[in-house]
Amino acid sequence: MRHNFGAGPCILPQEVFKQASQAVLDFKDGLSILEISHRTPEFEAVVDETVRLIKELMNVPSGYSVVLLQGGASLQFSMVPMNLLPEGGTAAYLETGIWANKAIKEVKTFGTANIVASSKESNYTYVPKDYVIPEDSAYFHCTSNNTIYGTELYNFPTTSVPVVCDMSSDIMSRVIDVAQFDLIYAGAQKNIGPAGLTIAIVKDEILGKSGRKLPSMLDYQVHIEGGSMYNTPPVFSIYVAMLNLRWLKSKGGVAEIEKENKAKAEALYKEIDRNPLFKGTCAVEDRSRMNVCFVMENPELEKPFLKLAEENGIEGIKGHRSVGGFRASMYNALPITSVHALIELMQIFAEKHQ
Amino acid sequence: MRHNFGAGPCILPQEVFKQASQAVLDFKDGLSILEISHRTPEFEAVVDETVRLIKELMNVPSGYSVVLLQGGASLQFSMVPMNLLPEGGTAAYLETGIWANKAIKEVKTFGTANIVASSKESNYTYVPKDYVIPEDSAYFHCTSNNTIYGTELYNFPTTSVPVVCDMSSDIMSRVIDVAQFDLIYAGAQKNIGPAGLTIAIVKDEILGKSGRKLPSMLDYQVHIEGGSMYNTPPVFSIYVAMLNLRWLKSKGGVAEIEKENKAKAEALYKEIDRNPLFKGTCAVEDRSRMNVCFVMENPELEKPFLKLAEENGIEGIKGHRSVGGFRASMYNALPITSVHALIELMQIFAEKHQ
Repeated sequence: MRHNFGAGPCILPQEVFKQASQAVLDFKDGLSILEISHRTPEFEAVVDETVRLIKELMNVPSGYSVVLLQGGASLQFSMVPMNLLPEGGTAAYLETGIWANKAIKEVKTFGTANIVASSKESNYTYVPKDYVIPEDSAYFHCTSNNTIYGTELYNFPTTSVPVVCDMSSDIMSRVIDVAQFDLIYAGAQKNIGPAGLTIAIVKDEILGKSGRKLPSMLDYQVHIEGGSMYNTPPVFSIYVAMLNLRWLKSKGGVAEIEKENKAKAEALYKEIDRNPLFKGTCAVEDRSRMNVCFVMENPELEKPFLKLAEENGIEGIKGHRSVGGFRASMYNALPITSVHALIELMQIFAEKHQ
Repeated sequence: MRHNFGAGPCILPQEVFKQASQAVLDFKDGLSILEISHRTPEFEAVVDETVRLIKELMNVPSGYSVVLLQGGASLQFSMVPMNLLPEGGTAAYLETGIWANKAIKEVKTFGTANIVASSKESNYTYVPKDYVIPEDSAYFHCTSNNTIYGTELYNFPTTSVPVVCDMSSDIMSRVIDVAQFDLIYAGAQKNIGPAGLTIAIVKDEILGKSGRKLPSMLDYQVHIEGGSMYNTPPVFSIYVAMLNLRWLKSKGGVAEIEKENKAKAEALYKEIDRNPLFKGTCAVEDRSRMNVCFVMENPELEKPFLKLAEENGIEGIKGHRSVGGFRASMYNALPITSVHALIELMQIFAEKHQ
């Protein structure tokens, strides 16, 4: 039995793998999903259903468009200022990790990033809370979950400026109020689907105001008008995302999966706090439910524990090099039984080494 | 039996579908190709092999880099001027179809496109041959194959300016001399692999000269330095491309597949020219081997022929709306038996309707 705690691209439901595997052989009348035109009615129905499921599962209000893109969150780091930042303008950024930092770096080609708060000095072990967003900012940008450090934003600011959020690593893991945001984007490869797809949820009224001439492929409006088919989309990634969103809906949607995600996170954090060999790495109130980062009181025991974990089918818990120790990523599709398996190993290991 | 003549995303070899389907279930130790980290040694080996196969199959000389990107040729339409065109500069474009036209339109955000020749006035039924590329052009851009109109460039200009070519629809279908080009790009979804992947072959020395500040994701140099892993790549599309390139190598490589492609095209054009019901739509010397466009002498017979074709498993031969009639796309993976099946139907239909 494998337990895939990898940080992403990550585990998806087994039934999604089975359906996707079958569609590679036969999607329609003996033709593979890999050899059909994106302009066939059958694939247009896939795009429509994917967009509809995103709207339904996230309860997207009217006045917002959902688009399916390519290039990952990394391309969004540039598309956001290109679309929203006027020439010479300033945007406010909350720096909560390396991904926020990368987003900040991409602004300089287009204007100025004003870092309203940062936890960089503590290696991003907490989420800054007291900060002011200047009212003349073109927008405010934040990262809702920080995979490398294991922190998550549980409160978003109320502000008169448009709020942009990179939700790549916790989208659809918990209920959020889309109306609090003006632009949400996410690489698909955590809770949405496989790598190669990016989604954006855009409040229509914020577009067309930057005064910039934009390349077509980097203009949200072009993709909205093209129905996510301005050019050939990443067909298979969209198809698998649709299967995965169907699975999420069948599980009861985001509110239900949030309960499971809370239960998984509570169980593991409880063991980390209880077990004398382990300790969490970040502020308790900011602990992420998606990525649980922890180290050992005695660093020399980390290697043997990692070995024991690997021998027992626990995959992908090695921490990012900038934090060390362990990171257990527990995305939607990870069953709670996998979390129990990890906890049991931590207990067995503690008994041996106490 | 299905015969997939679709224009793209298009047919790939059946054995590639089988291998890809299996990897969706189990790529490594029971884990799906859809749930593994792109940073695993196993996937890094996939990227390395894909790049190596492209270099080997196309005989890419030293001094060139191969990168795996996202966004399709449509994003390349902008990346090319962003990377190569200095502020206020002019680039020369050959206008041979709608895709060339789209590439031309994207230049205006960055500078000026000088259309050195165009066959627009004849609905792109031929490839212009007498044109002059001004020596002060930042680069010359052409499209090697025009899917919609069924024309192909069999000669490329000798010029002192860098030559950029969109080879999306005929790359690896015939031997080309990479040294004649400074930048080749192609959406994968014809002869390389499934949609969601784009490749670029860049002569290193042409980069870094435009004087522009570039967003990281739109800078070829960033992807070269990142080994096509600057951010999460389209994992599955790359994996399937690798499988398909392995297949091409096992077939004897590009020179061998070119022979097959010539045989397929010759057979079908011969029937079009022989059969009194059908006629080709473009200049004989510019006829594409990838996309064979033809109409009927009596347009009223087109609908019944299309119906007959569909009843006999011939998929995707309806012509693009801007040309009408039929388009038989015959990419590398289309077996010659499919071409024979189409020819046979044309003959049966002619006997009935003469």
